[in-house]
Amino acid sequence: MNTNISFQDIQQAHQIISKFAHRTPVLTCSAINKITHTNLFFKCENFQKVGAFKFRGAINAISNISKKELKKGVATHSSGNHAAALALAAKLMNVPAYIVMPETAPEIKKKAVAGYGAKITFCKPTLEARELELQKIVNKTEANFIHPYDNDFIIAGQATAAKELIENYGDFDIIMAPVGGGGLLSGTSISTKNLLPKAKIIAGEPEEADDAYRSFCGKKLYPSVSPTTIADGLLTSLSERTFKIISENVSEIITVPEKLIIAAMKTVWERMKIIIEPSSAVPLAAILKQPDKFENKKIGIIISGGNVDLSKLPW
Amino acid sequence: MNTNISFQDIQQAHQIISKFAHRTPVLTCSAINKITHTNLFFKCENFQKVGAFKFRGAINAISNISKKELKKGVATHSSGNHAAALALAAKLMNVPAYIVMPETAPEIKKKAVAGYGAKITFCKPTLEARELELQKIVNKTEANFIHPYDNDFIIAGQATAAKELIENYGDFDIIMAPVGGGGLLSGTSISTKNLLPKAKIIAGEPEEADDAYRSFCGKKLYPSVSPTTIADGLLTSLSERTFKIISENVSEIITVPEKLIIAAMKTVWERMKIIIEPSSAVPLAAILKQPDKFENKKIGIIISGGNVDLSKLPW
Repeated sequence: MNTNISFQDIQQAHQIISKFAHRTPVLTCSAINKITHTNLFFKCENFQKVGAFKFRGAINAISNISKKELKKGVATHSSGNHAAALALAAKLMNVPAYIVMPETAPEIKKKAVAGYGAKITFCKPTLEARELELQKIVNKTEANFIHPYDNDFIIAGQATAAKELIENYGDFDIIMAPVGGGGLLSGTSISTKNLLPKAKIIAGEPEEADDAYRSFCGKKLYPSVSPTTIADGLLTSLSERTFKIISENVSEIITVPEKLIIAAMKTVWERMKIIIEPSSAVPLAAILKQPDKFENKKIGIIISGGNVDLSKLPW
Repeated sequence: MNTNISFQDIQQAHQIISKFAHRTPVLTCSAINKITHTNLFFKCENFQKVGAFKFRGAINAISNISKKELKKGVATHSSGNHAAALALAAKLMNVPAYIVMPETAPEIKKKAVAGYGAKITFCKPTLEARELELQKIVNKTEANFIHPYDNDFIIAGQATAAKELIENYGDFDIIMAPVGGGGLLSGTSISTKNLLPKAKIIAGEPEEADDAYRSFCGKKLYPSVSPTTIADGLLTSLSERTFKIISENVSEIITVPEKLIIAAMKTVWERMKIIIEPSSAVPLAAILKQPDKFENKKIGIIISGGNVDLSKLPW
């Protein structure tokens, strides 16, 4: 396992990604700045293709597979956004995508994956069930397994969101991202360390899925046990790879209760008039939880996605 | 009554407005283009201050009152967005705002108006009740009545949204806006006639509040009778002033059923990840109702606002 992802790897990923992905806008909101006494810049990956940053990693990973290998297709397990991202990337490359999804995934994410023409297998919502189903498919098809986050090309791809944010609005005191499996946070941390060595990298994580927090504090990898957060993109646990990168680069992980995630999400909807999914609201929830830490800081936040089941809103 | 608003009036309004308002972004969505077989450009006034285009007209109108007169304050009646816009404009000028609102106005709009420090009087949701309450207030305070749409400065202000849209993305086949009292549509039509004389101007209107459609077709002003549409920004009726401008400039008014307004609104939320209010969805609903008319056209749509009560969504 190589976790030495260089900034050059991220630059190469960015060259590939720029051909396929949107350079998403960065939005500010004076009302939320006023509430939080901060200066926030939201990198809006909810406007990215498939409605999430995951398209960056997926298209980078798929572009780094040899043509011969790629013909066999790609496969993964994912609660939603990585699945949709890989399905679209495979469609663009004209190769099959085999996706294992937990049967509990949001309806909108199931629909999106099906809409990109992927072959979906549903499974129980546990890591074991996902991996077992996936192994069966890979054995049968020889498709290339693309892990949602335990993959250097994926991490280098996700890193490009923070790279764009810093290129456009430089000079941040703090860069924030949510943490689930740690692909986005790992990539974000490498871009930030390279472009803004003095900036702090702070992650937000749901209290109800706090494996990254426990691993980070305990200096040992602890997997999640039956997490049940509304932030459905953050149910996965760190891998050895993302744990190592995060341990080296991240200043702090702040856990937040469900109520604060929902309040932060609603504040963004009401004040910014943009749709973000619960996972995206976790960094703002962390600011609301510990406001003193962030007062008067210039903060960049990666808004991870905007795929929400509109018929099941949490308020 | 002078309805000869010139393009120079709009240019002057734009100079004033640029100092106070956002130049809102124009968004496109390949998924919605694919569904409608069109090329749509959405001018996102949901991202405008107070969450609606109404701030343009309000700040222009208030800036054209003499300092001496302005000290007495401003007054209006409005179902919501004009009220918030005038309240904010008055706050910026440091003068009092007296607002008459129907008691049925959405909670989020009542809160916004109160939040800008305006003095609110609630009334029954009829034009008669609004006008009666307002007259009492004006008699008492000598505040300057700023009508939500029957006012040349308001219309010239609203016209600047279409001006910006055309300046940025020129060369449209069709420009669309919703129609309620007709201030936005009147302004949009004057900007379009001046900048793109060959473009068609097409309005969308709820079937359940179709006074503009009936007036336009009957060539005579018919007021609304107890309209009850979900598009709460479009409950008002044309005035003689807006009726004249619309009759001269607009190609067509298409009425749409409530179901199609809700479907169009949901499509924008799901696909574009932006929050628009029901009134804003009416032009897209018109395209969904008569798709052949719009096929392969380059169309600019004014998204009028994004103030929605998130606890009362229509799906």
